[in-house]
Amino acid sequence: MSVAASAMKLSEIADRLGTTCEGDESRMIMGIAGIRDASEGDLTFLANKRYAAAARDTNASAILVPRDWNQATGAAVLRVEDPDAAFAEVARWFAPPAYEPPPGIHPSAVIAEDVQLGADVRIGALSVVESGVHLGDRSVVHPCAYIGPETRIGVEARIYPQVSIREHTRIGDRVIIHNGAVIGSDGFGYTVDGKGVRTKIPQIGIVEIGNDVEIGACVTIDRARFGKTVIGNGVKIDNLVQIAHNVVIGDHAVIVSQVGISGSTRVGKHAILAGQAGVAGHIVIGDGAVVAARGGVTKDVPAGAFYSDYPAMPHNEARKKHAYIARLPKMKEQIAELEKRLKQLEEGRT
Amino acid sequence: MSVAASAMKLSEIADRLGTTCEGDESRMIMGIAGIRDASEGDLTFLANKRYAAAARDTNASAILVPRDWNQATGAAVLRVEDPDAAFAEVARWFAPPAYEPPPGIHPSAVIAEDVQLGADVRIGALSVVESGVHLGDRSVVHPCAYIGPETRIGVEARIYPQVSIREHTRIGDRVIIHNGAVIGSDGFGYTVDGKGVRTKIPQIGIVEIGNDVEIGACVTIDRARFGKTVIGNGVKIDNLVQIAHNVVIGDHAVIVSQVGISGSTRVGKHAILAGQAGVAGHIVIGDGAVVAARGGVTKDVPAGAFYSDYPAMPHNEARKKHAYIARLPKMKEQIAELEKRLKQLEEGRT
Amino acid sequence: MSVAASAMKLSEIADRLGTTCEGDESRMIMGIAGIRDASEGDLTFLANKRYAAAARDTNASAILVPRDWNQATGAAVLRVEDPDAAFAEVARWFAPPAYEPPPGIHPSAVIAEDVQLGADVRIGALSVVESGVHLGDRSVVHPCAYIGPETRIGVEARIYPQVSIREHTRIGDRVIIHNGAVIGSDGFGYTVDGKGVRTKIPQIGIVEIGNDVEIGACVTIDRARFGKTVIGNGVKIDNLVQIAHNVVIGDHAVIVSQVGISGSTRVGKHAILAGQAGVAGHIVIGDGAVVAARGGVTKDVPAGAFYSDYPAMPHNEARKKHAYIARLPKMKEQIAELEKRLKQLEEGRT
Repeated sequence: MSVAASAMKLSEIADRLGTTCEGDESRMIMGIAGIRDASEGDLTFLANKRYAAAARDTNASAILVPRDWNQATGAAVLRVEDPDAAFAEVARWFAPPAYEPPPGIHPSAVIAEDVQLGADVRIGALSVVESGVHLGDRSVVHPCAYIGPETRIGVEARIYPQVSIREHTRIGDRVIIHNGAVIGSDGFGYTVDGKGVRTKIPQIGIVEIGNDVEIGACVTIDRARFGKTVIGNGVKIDNLVQIAHNVVIGDHAVIVSQVGISGSTRVGKHAILAGQAGVAGHIVIGDGAVVAARGGVTKDVPAGAFYSDYPAMPHNEARKKHAYIARLPKMKEQIAELEKRLKQLEEGRT
Repeated sequence: MSVAASAMKLSEIADRLGTTCEGDESRMIMGIAGIRDASEGDLTFLANKRYAAAARDTNASAILVPRDWNQATGAAVLRVEDPDAAFAEVARWFAPPAYEPPPGIHPSAVIAEDVQLGADVRIGALSVVESGVHLGDRSVVHPCAYIGPETRIGVEARIYPQVSIREHTRIGDRVIIHNGAVIGSDGFGYTVDGKGVRTKIPQIGIVEIGNDVEIGACVTIDRARFGKTVIGNGVKIDNLVQIAHNVVIGDHAVIVSQVGISGSTRVGKHAILAGQAGVAGHIVIGDGAVVAARGGVTKDVPAGAFYSDYPAMPHNEARKKHAYIARLPKMKEQIAELEKRLKQLEEGRT
Repeated sequence: MSVAASAMKLSEIADRLGTTCEGDESRMIMGIAGIRDASEGDLTFLANKRYAAAARDTNASAILVPRDWNQATGAAVLRVEDPDAAFAEVARWFAPPAYEPPPGIHPSAVIAEDVQLGADVRIGALSVVESGVHLGDRSVVHPCAYIGPETRIGVEARIYPQVSIREHTRIGDRVIIHNGAVIGSDGFGYTVDGKGVRTKIPQIGIVEIGNDVEIGACVTIDRARFGKTVIGNGVKIDNLVQIAHNVVIGDHAVIVSQVGISGSTRVGKHAILAGQAGVAGHIVIGDGAVVAARGGVTKDVPAGAFYSDYPAMPHNEARKKHAYIARLPKMKEQIAELEKRLKQLEEGRT
């Protein structure tokens, strides 16, 4: 499947990427596609040098390749530093705009009288926008979304269907929230009596989300017990992530799918938590730290460190640990061998 | 609790299961129930031979047992190859049909003018069906669901409340999608600049789902960066599963709850990923392979293999690894013993 | 951010907590806040003795501290047994009531004619309440929720937006269900033929939820294959938890975020499953047992036990196991040393 939202001359693509074209640069490019799916008129890219055969056989009209690539292909060749990034760039030029509901407020949406809507706001069918909400200019609320009382959302937000945003949430500019995500549900907090019966602690804080944040489908972000749960600027959160009450996520951090972050933990700026990682409560993960997929963090992680395993430790230590475990059969043999030789010595002495 | 949607003579049940009845075969069976919950008029089954006492004491009027079972019971006995499967078969005869909204389109639903609806389609209250959608014959959209523009759904679909299906999705025949599932949300893809600031890569592909697929509650399936994310025919997906962009799931694969599959990974036909397993990106899992619960797959898995542990390895190796780890206290003792004997030898020599 | 829903004299707070005030007890307290965020008029608390500097510098007017605390602070001091619990108690006095939609039924909600609504029920905009539903006195259904046919809900329920409750569910009194949760979706059950093709087993049971239960955002609880899935009284379930068909959760159990519980497993009363734990099917977890975060339970857990690791084992054993693994480099050295000394002995003998 190729995507053809517009057409562009190959020479223009080469110019905009700061490279030249080896082949017919007057060719019109109509769309982009993967190397095996591409057809005539498409631009593709070499994601990995292992795909040399696919590059030779591709039906694409042009291909982005690394500067030093020297294999055969029938397509016109554009050499670039990073074909993947360059292809993403071209994809932005060709991508059709994200689907939006038509301008204005759908008559079936239920909008409180006192909402403050910026210019060119769109609200889809059967959405609910409660009292006191502010929605910034050019923000889009898709159908079937719920925005709770006194919530403020900046400019150019994109709120997808079935999203729930609870009361008093603060959301910055250019934030995207995918379907089914829940922002501002109560934190998980109870007092427990002598019989093990729990009583709910009121969760009277809020959630505050910065600018340029993207939040995946079915993500849950709890409001603070008091004060606020904070998602910094530029943070990207993948699907099905859990962020507990009073967590603070630093600017530009990346939280991959199915990660869970327990209450009051702080994640540093530019930190990356890979898929299915988990972090205990009241932990500090330093700026720029990386936790590998499935890492289970039980202690603070220093800035810039790369941690993995469970309980999480520096990745080098984890690698050594696994290497030692892999040597266990060998160690067992060595012990048996020592035992045998020692026995011979003992018998020789008697 | 027994389920009594109809009544059937025990002789007829025996006939349809290809067996005979030991006991009063003229007895009317009014419902089915678990061995401990059953009351008079119910059919039950022996799930496990350990439940001999429950079989003796059950109030059920009839019981499905393995062919070689020889314990006491007051119920009429039907011997079958696989009591569990036979009970499931009887359950299908007795099960009330799944609840459906009434025929037609509820007046509160918001349906674009140009949708194409097959015969006997039902659409529940407050659902949204956007422009260009095709819905096949006898498909059912429950209340509060959202179906995005240009999506095509085959015959006899069952779309439950709060489901979100985004634009351009392709769905086959007889597909069931449970409440809160999200199909076609954006893949998680960014380019990153020198300062660690990420820019969204447009996700311009689609999701394509085959025939006879069932998708659990709050599952998230991302659309492809370009091209398509594919769910094959007969695939069964449990609740809270994450399927990233450009993943391809082969026909009849089974994905159990809370599994996460990273971008561009391919899961073979008839493969099984058990609960909470995770798979890294760009991995190939062969046809018929099984990944045990919690398995964390970081390398390709051959067809037919049974992998477990993290990082995932052949299950036999994982078992050996754990056995070696369990021997560590013994090894420590052996080393101490060798040390002691060696010291005696050394002292003896001096 | 401080929360100021009311004002209370410090002497009254001290009285109600059964303590006295060291400082100006006539002071009006206007809100509560964390130790670093508090401003004049706020009450705060010392969560941890490490925060002595914050206690010295806080702008709060009063602080809850442990009885034996003896550091400097400018705030009035209230000594209590457990500052955290006492603060939660004060928070309950100051907390604004949870947001509720206005009294009555919003005209845009779609309510079947035969529903039975108790006194003072509130139903928000664009919610659907199907035929045969009972809603107890003072229950609140927020906007955009779906309550399926024949479901019964007790008094003072709080059902948040985007919740789905399927047909025939039974819910007790004072139950809170957070946004996006799904109650009563089909269990994951199939028979499989010789070609590996699966056929759905009807899931004709129900979900039954006790009194005083809280269920987090995007939790999924499947209906029983037959009979019922049971959530006992006082159970607290955090976000994104999966509870499979026919599971039984005992009274007052606590299930933390992202836990998965497989089919037919029984969790004892007052048991605690910490974050990201997983439990296989048909397991029994005894009363009061605790499974640590990430624990993967593959066998029964005795009452009162504390299990961790994967596969889960008594926590003491798991600690020993990890200690032995950490000793592996030392063991390797010991073996090399023995080898060397043994070789010397052997050479000495020849």
